[in-house]
Amino acid sequence: MDFFEVVDTQRAIRRFRGEPVGDEVLARVLSAATRAPSARGAEPWGFVVVRDPGRRAAIASLYRQAWEAADAFTRATDADRDVRDRPHYTRMMTAAGRLATTLADAPVLIVCCLDHAQLGPIAGPDGALRSPVAAYASILPAVQNLCLAARALGLGTTLTTLHTAFEPQLKALLAIPPTVEPVALVPLGWPSDRFRPTRRRPVSEVAYLDAWGAPLLMH
Amino acid sequence: MDFFEVVDTQRAIRRFRGEPVGDEVLARVLSAATRAPSARGAEPWGFVVVRDPGRRAAIASLYRQAWEAADAFTRATDADRDVRDRPHYTRMMTAAGRLATTLADAPVLIVCCLDHAQLGPIAGPDGALRSPVAAYASILPAVQNLCLAARALGLGTTLTTLHTAFEPQLKALLAIPPTVEPVALVPLGWPSDRFRPTRRRPVSEVAYLDAWGAPLLMH
Repeated sequence: MDFFEVVDTQRAIRRFRGEPVGDEVLARVLSAATRAPSARGAEPWGFVVVRDPGRRAAIASLYRQAWEAADAFTRATDADRDVRDRPHYTRMMTAAGRLATTLADAPVLIVCCLDHAQLGPIAGPDGALRSPVAAYASILPAVQNLCLAARALGLGTTLTTLHTAFEPQLKALLAIPPTVEPVALVPLGWPSDRFRPTRRRPVSEVAYLDAWGAPLLMH
Repeated sequence: MDFFEVVDTQRAIRRFRGEPVGDEVLARVLSAATRAPSARGAEPWGFVVVRDPGRRAAIASLYRQAWEAADAFTRATDADRDVRDRPHYTRMMTAAGRLATTLADAPVLIVCCLDHAQLGPIAGPDGALRSPVAAYASILPAVQNLCLAARALGLGTTLTTLHTAFEPQLKALLAIPPTVEPVALVPLGWPSDRFRPTRRRPVSEVAYLDAWGAPLLMH
C-alpha cells in the first residue's frame, strides 16, 4: 500500500469485528514498530500482546473506571472548552466513551512499554527521567509505526494513554518489571468502521518560517 | 512508495547534500506530520521551519555545546556501558558527533513544538503536565510521521532532542511563546548517505504474549 495513502487515512478505530488477528499480520505490525528510532539505538522497548480474555476483561474494567474519572474531571473543570465546538468533538467523545465500555471486545491489546533501565544517561540510577522528551522519543515513534503498519494491513488501532491512571494494577496484571513503564495501550483488530481520509487544520496554520507565527510562504 | 519499504529503510541521516529543499516536498512532509493522532483531536502542535542561515548557525552552535556537555557527562558516568559493545554503537556515535559540528549544513531545521495551552485537562493552568505520556503522545507521533514522509520522498532526517539543554535560548531565537515547548529538532535535507534496511533485534526478543517475558509463539 502506498505510504501517503496509509498516512492520510490513519484514524482512530474504536470498534472491532470479532475475527481474530493472525500471528503473521501481528508479527508484521510489531516488526514495523521496532524499525523506529530510539536514543542511543538502544531499542529500549517491549510490547505485551494481550490476547487472553481474562486479562483483557480485567484491563477493560480498569480502563472504564479511569475513563469515568477522567470524564468527570474534564466536565467539572470544563477542561475541553477549547475544543468542544470543533466539528469532530462530539463524535470523537461518543466513540471514545463507547470504547471505554467495550475495550475487551478488541481481540488484541498491545501494551507498549519503555524500559527506563535501557535509557543510559537519559534516566538516573533510580530510573527517574532526566529528559522525559528524550525518553518518550524512544518509544512513541515505535507506537506510531505500529499504528501505521496496522492501517497498511487493514487493521484498526487507537493510541490511548488512560492506563497511566491504573499503572500499578496494569503492571501487576502483566508481570511488567519495576523499571519498565507502560507508555501506550493500543487496542487492535479488524475495524467495524471504514478508513477514510482524516481532516486536519491546514499546514499554513501550524507551520511557520524561521520564527513562530511567521507565514510559511509556499511559492 | 510502498509503506513497508519506507518503514523498513527509515534510518537516521546525519549528512546532507547542498541542494535546497523545495517548498512542495516540504509542504507534503508537514502535511503528513499533521495526520498523526493527538489527545482530544486538538492538534496541539506547531512546526518552525528554519531556513535562515543565521538562525541555523546559532542553533548549530548551541547544539554543539550541548553535545559536548552530554558527551562528557556520558563518558564521566560511563552511562553508555550497556550499548557500547553493540555493533552499531561506534559508527552511530561518530556520525552523531559529526552532526554536532555540521548541523548548520542541513538546509532545513524543523523545530517540532507542543503547545501546553492546547492540552486541556492534560496540563494544569500553569502549563505543567499532569500526564507527560499523554502530552508527548500528542506530538511525537507527528514527528515520526514527518520523518517517515521525508524518507518516502527521498529526504533524510534524524530525530534529536538535545535542544532541551538550551530550550530558553532556542525559544528566544525563534520567538516561541511561553506555553509552547520544542519537543524535537529535526534536520532535513537530501541525504549524502544512502537509505538501506535498518537492523533491529527480532520481534521475538521484544514482544511477549499476555505477560512480560512470555514467548510470543508464532504458529
